[in-house]
Amino acid sequence: MEYKIAVIPGDGIGVEVINEGVKLLKLISKLYEDIDFRFDFFDYGCDYYLKYKRMMEEDGLEKLSKSDAIYLGAVGNNTVSDDISLRGLLLKIRQEFDQYVNLRPIKLLKGAETIIKGKSKDDIDMIFIRENSEGEYIGTGSHMFKNSPRELVIQDNVFTRYGCERIIRYAFEVAKQNKKSLTSISKANALNYSMVFWDSIFNEIKAEYPEVETHSLLVDAATMVMVNEPEKLEVVVSSNLFGDILTDLGAAIAGGIGLAAGANINPEKRYPSMFEPIHGSAPNIAGKGIANPVAAIWSVSQMMDFFGREDIGLDILNAIEKLLVEKKCLPTDLGGSKSTTAVGDEICRNLTEIVENKIK
Amino acid sequence: MEYKIAVIPGDGIGVEVINEGVKLLKLISKLYEDIDFRFDFFDYGCDYYLKYKRMMEEDGLEKLSKSDAIYLGAVGNNTVSDDISLRGLLLKIRQEFDQYVNLRPIKLLKGAETIIKGKSKDDIDMIFIRENSEGEYIGTGSHMFKNSPRELVIQDNVFTRYGCERIIRYAFEVAKQNKKSLTSISKANALNYSMVFWDSIFNEIKAEYPEVETHSLLVDAATMVMVNEPEKLEVVVSSNLFGDILTDLGAAIAGGIGLAAGANINPEKRYPSMFEPIHGSAPNIAGKGIANPVAAIWSVSQMMDFFGREDIGLDILNAIEKLLVEKKCLPTDLGGSKSTTAVGDEICRNLTEIVENKIK
Ligand SMILES: CC(C)[C@H](C(=O)O)[C@@H](O)C(=O)O
Ligand SMILES: CC(C)[C@H](C(=O)O)[C@@H](O)C(=O)O
Repeated sequence: MEYKIAVIPGDGIGVEVINEGVKLLKLISKLYEDIDFRFDFFDYGCDYYLKYKRMMEEDGLEKLSKSDAIYLGAVGNNTVSDDISLRGLLLKIRQEFDQYVNLRPIKLLKGAETIIKGKSKDDIDMIFIRENSEGEYIGTGSHMFKNSPRELVIQDNVFTRYGCERIIRYAFEVAKQNKKSLTSISKANALNYSMVFWDSIFNEIKAEYPEVETHSLLVDAATMVMVNEPEKLEVVVSSNLFGDILTDLGAAIAGGIGLAAGANINPEKRYPSMFEPIHGSAPNIAGKGIANPVAAIWSVSQMMDFFGREDIGLDILNAIEKLLVEKKCLPTDLGGSKSTTAVGDEICRNLTEIVENKIK
Repeated sequence: MEYKIAVIPGDGIGVEVINEGVKLLKLISKLYEDIDFRFDFFDYGCDYYLKYKRMMEEDGLEKLSKSDAIYLGAVGNNTVSDDISLRGLLLKIRQEFDQYVNLRPIKLLKGAETIIKGKSKDDIDMIFIRENSEGEYIGTGSHMFKNSPRELVIQDNVFTRYGCERIIRYAFEVAKQNKKSLTSISKANALNYSMVFWDSIFNEIKAEYPEVETHSLLVDAATMVMVNEPEKLEVVVSSNLFGDILTDLGAAIAGGIGLAAGANINPEKRYPSMFEPIHGSAPNIAGKGIANPVAAIWSVSQMMDFFGREDIGLDILNAIEKLLVEKKCLPTDLGGSKSTTAVGDEICRNLTEIVENKIK
């Protein structure tokens, strides 16, 4: 099977970490039977914007749509305002390709350290499912009475039955298949339209899944549960913004942002799905060759799962865990001193070893 | 000076902890010169709702407006839906009395323990200023095409220049007076109306305060900074929802929700301000007499500051710290076994001792 991968390294450290992911993908096609990749590289990002006044080509989406998966680094830097760069690339792809599931593992890997006292890898192991196509991120609104004392803006938060049902149903399926509980994140005590509606749809769909244990948690309280009792959370489903906030907190408790990966999935496969580290372009360390490539590599593992090759996905996770447990080749954010390339090479070596040991 | 305090114990443990706060207030009027309180009690809350189908009397706001301060326990229980109970009481008072500043200390007291590895009380000491009258909590929106496949809701997030300017300016004043840096919480990369507007107003007002060091942080990244590098945050200003979320996380890192207090302030004193523990009514432990009264008592300290009696406010904090350092009379959430009343009594004893030692 050959998969077409559209690679968008993007800005800052995006370029550096994606290099390592591509290196690993090339290795995978050598190590495993029946899998091969063809890469198309796209130079979309802020530099592209400075030249062409757009974040991607006019027919960029058209071109990307021909791929089986998009592999994205990071978007944004100090030269283009963030609402333009993100709305013009990352968020545009998520919305236009209807990647309505944002799947983020919050899992403390073997060898990784949490910042929370008294918690271990058995306590921190969630599948976080974030709505990724509407809600607070719909992007419509108004700006009135500009530069007058009565100036105001309205940011619309649009929650559709269509959008809520499908993400909540997806989450119930994941919980059911994994025999896990499902926690829905709410804020109905204050958000009297969006979250009251969210809760009512959650309750409707709950009736279809009597076998799944469910909980509902207010988003503010959820931050406390995440640090105090993360073991209570298994599968979690939330709106777009709440998922954005809570998964960053999740990254912080699960070993740091250098280890956090995310998949933007269109489950029906009408459009390509997109895989990315959840960290940003980190202008402050860009170009130094010290970025941690683990998140980008974990997202390759998610890509393999998505292609139905969970065997490879798992081997990649094991190769990462070996790196973290051995501790001899760690990047700076994990207390080591190794370069992005050195860490990537080490994970490649680990993966090779894992595959060879299986053959023996 | 006699102050009129409107006491609304509310629901669940609200009643239990407010008892202890009132006990302390009565003691204060004995221990200190020139300060006295008159209490009016209001039985507003969910039980009230079950009887009268409203959360407060028709002229409730009118009655409350005659007080110098409102002292509130907690609102909400399982019998009334949360959007009704909170919108009908807590949020109503905040909005109608234009308590646009929500002031929440995130401070690890002496003797309190943080859940975060490697951090101590020198690292966790912020003044969190949350916009409290508009933004995501404005409460307007629409619900269309009910029960059809195209059903949708819109929750308006309304940010006015008037509202943003005053809270940001308030925060700059606090930072300036305390010689601290000011961090603004944003999410302009995704919220293209509300947060782009918020940032632009922040930048306008920044020009008026060249002496204040400023930072801007995305709300998702802010959760990570709060657990990884809380020492970087001194004064923080945010929108209503972001403040809601981040101050709960703040409570979690500063010793737990049992220790977190909040003041809802109308700085112009056109309306009474309101003081409350930030925890909820906790139906699961209500009636057992084991709730931690420290948050409610800390909010009495905030009330004293607001009345210009910072001397008393500080003594109360010292009385709480004594409790936490001695550890002989701790409530269950802090690992002790003492009742709400016993803890309240102990803080009263500590305060008496502190005042007597000053006289000597
Ligand atoms: C870069 C930004 C627009 C994005 C988001 O808010 O979704 C990021 O924080 C993420 O979580 O993927
Ligand atoms: C009870 C709820 C409406 C309230 C809020 O969201 O403001 C609470 O969480 C708080 O922080 O005071």
